[in-house]
Amino acid sequence: MQEEKLTDTASRLLVINLIFREGMLNRSYMPENEVNFSRGLEGVIASQTKIGYIDGLKGHLVYRGYEINSLVENSTYEETAYLLLYGRLPTRSELDDFTSKLKERSSINKETYDVIRRIAGLSHTMSSLRTAVSYIGTHSKLGDKTDYESQEEMGISIIAKMPTIVAAIKRAVNNEDFIEPDPSLSYTENFLYQSFGERKSKEVTRILDSMLLLHADHGMNASTFASMVVISTLSDMYSAITAGISALKGPLHGGANERALKMIMSIGSPEKVPEAIGRMLESKEKIMGFGHRVYKVYDPRAKIVKTYADQLTKGTPLRKVYETAIKIEDYMIERLGSKGIFPNVDFYSGIAYKAIGFEPELFTPIFAVSRITGWVARDLEYLTNNRIFRPRSEYIGESEIKSYIPIERR
Amino acid sequence: MQEEKLTDTASRLLVINLIFREGMLNRSYMPENEVNFSRGLEGVIASQTKIGYIDGLKGHLVYRGYEINSLVENSTYEETAYLLLYGRLPTRSELDDFTSKLKERSSINKETYDVIRRIAGLSHTMSSLRTAVSYIGTHSKLGDKTDYESQEEMGISIIAKMPTIVAAIKRAVNNEDFIEPDPSLSYTENFLYQSFGERKSKEVTRILDSMLLLHADHGMNASTFASMVVISTLSDMYSAITAGISALKGPLHGGANERALKMIMSIGSPEKVPEAIGRMLESKEKIMGFGHRVYKVYDPRAKIVKTYADQLTKGTPLRKVYETAIKIEDYMIERLGSKGIFPNVDFYSGIAYKAIGFEPELFTPIFAVSRITGWVARDLEYLTNNRIFRPRSEYIGESEIKSYIPIERR
Repeated sequence: MQEEKLTDTASRLLVINLIFREGMLNRSYMPENEVNFSRGLEGVIASQTKIGYIDGLKGHLVYRGYEINSLVENSTYEETAYLLLYGRLPTRSELDDFTSKLKERSSINKETYDVIRRIAGLSHTMSSLRTAVSYIGTHSKLGDKTDYESQEEMGISIIAKMPTIVAAIKRAVNNEDFIEPDPSLSYTENFLYQSFGERKSKEVTRILDSMLLLHADHGMNASTFASMVVISTLSDMYSAITAGISALKGPLHGGANERALKMIMSIGSPEKVPEAIGRMLESKEKIMGFGHRVYKVYDPRAKIVKTYADQLTKGTPLRKVYETAIKIEDYMIERLGSKGIFPNVDFYSGIAYKAIGFEPELFTPIFAVSRITGWVARDLEYLTNNRIFRPRSEYIGESEIKSYIPIERR
Repeated sequence: MQEEKLTDTASRLLVINLIFREGMLNRSYMPENEVNFSRGLEGVIASQTKIGYIDGLKGHLVYRGYEINSLVENSTYEETAYLLLYGRLPTRSELDDFTSKLKERSSINKETYDVIRRIAGLSHTMSSLRTAVSYIGTHSKLGDKTDYESQEEMGISIIAKMPTIVAAIKRAVNNEDFIEPDPSLSYTENFLYQSFGERKSKEVTRILDSMLLLHADHGMNASTFASMVVISTLSDMYSAITAGISALKGPLHGGANERALKMIMSIGSPEKVPEAIGRMLESKEKIMGFGHRVYKVYDPRAKIVKTYADQLTKGTPLRKVYETAIKIEDYMIERLGSKGIFPNVDFYSGIAYKAIGFEPELFTPIFAVSRITGWVARDLEYLTNNRIFRPRSEYIGESEIKSYIPIERR
């Protein structure tokens, strides 16, 4: 739609390039008039950020100047969280301090465990997570505060507690005893330990840590935005994160990997792919885990997670699922790659989480364990130059003022 | 800022007129280029609506074609809720059906009362409300559903339960026994009965009903918007309303009437007004309850609520507070009326709520008892033409890609 206004190929390419550089978007190239009403605020700039950006044409995801690949190779979740929150990689002592802070705040109280026990299994795991975080907020002494330091303290506390809460939900759903965090373990080690009641191998731990790291932030998205709208009223961080979780729960946002895995498993084996996917394409069914509003090339996260799914499924009963996925990718790229349709991160992450031992209902809560840092970082950044979000709606109803008619005469 | 681009007075007035007609805004008159990045999305249209609009220059608030004054004079909260939700005034049997539906859904279970008992008093009343609504959501059989009918059913259920929840929070804060809803009573009667343990006079009931009705919807605002961002992911209505409550909690949004009342009470008496307010104006302190982003004339709701504050305080110890408020208004209009600064609804509503017997910490939860209908109506309307909210952020950080430096070398 936006390209239609341009006449020559050069400027067309320039605009396309800019449109798909999330964050790097230069507003002087935004076609005028187009953004006055854009459904879903597509293309509308809602804030300025130094936290990161997506280059949807080059297939880059950048946190604070670092490409996601170099962080996945070298960094950890804690270090990357520090980077996202404070803008630069920490020194050894800064990282130690930050890690200690997280460990000190990672416990939840007995009452919270009780609430989780009572609600888990009644409804969606994300409803449990939403309620648990909100509940913990009522116990915070800072829940009434609006100053930056209090918001930051609440944010770090929620980041620290997130693996504990999600692991508790997992164990409550399975009617297992709760396991408290072990202060000798890292963020991801603790999440695995509290989830499964045992340590996982170094390889598995490292893979999950990288997966959490590479989902920690992803430009402006619906849950980040919901969280920012809430913080912009100077509400507290618990409220803002509750809103982020509420948005992530939606199947148009979180949950895509769960549905992708279901689709792959329902196809069942590589040789059934051409017929099954061919039929779905013909009947215009959505192929889960393909295409992205921003990436028009291969999702850089998918590239990484695909190798993890490969590693984790070798010699396991899930190998067939992985092989089916590979076949689906080949088939889809052959058919639609030229249109910029490639697998996104959700296509392979479900296989990886499942291979680690998580059930599909835990996939979206795991997403929250990761994205919590992006939410907190962007909320805090917004607060440094806050303005309440109050857009307008365009009235398209009848413009005439009506007279009230008593009920007997209707 | 927007006016600067225009050269003649006529078109300048036209644009001003359109800018302050919330909802009636005609996008062909939006100055180009200006809305590409607008902090807080001010002036940006985020959705189209038939529910209502504000005419900030004429001082009109319109629900579905009806001016707020004619509804306050003739309608009830239930009837207005029907109007906002379904687009027209109900027939007698439609209203009876709707009222029955609300009554049938107004109870909350023992577990929810227990949770409210446990958290009330620990933190902000809005944190309790946020948690209670989220908690009830985990008990809903519909919490996983995304179809319109399920969302509508959840919405009506939350509207029905809101007075019960807020009254329960009030009683828990005061360590009083809970009172269950009485199906023979109306929405507002029940709210008062559950809050105070006794019926209030017809006059008081009628006034509170009108106040709930006139706060039920108010264009696009931060809590409505937060709720819409959440529902746009196809998350469930409990999640969306939890987000609305989370945003309303912020002191830049809900809570202004509480702060206005505190300011009026701290001044103490009419004769102290010129000196106190004069000093505040000089030191550029914000005068709570004055001015509005949309209304540039007298807030039509304030006009109505002022008469209620008058009625309710006659012959009571609060009369002096009312008289102080009147004096503040006179003084402020004399000094700033020509700049379009007038009292808004928050300036008088605190006095009215206090005169009814509610403590200031309940004012924002009462706002939620009212606004719940606007949230549900706008969420449902958005779902009929849904598109996930996913705006962009403009990256303003360093554009160079950095190389990862090992921690020893930082």
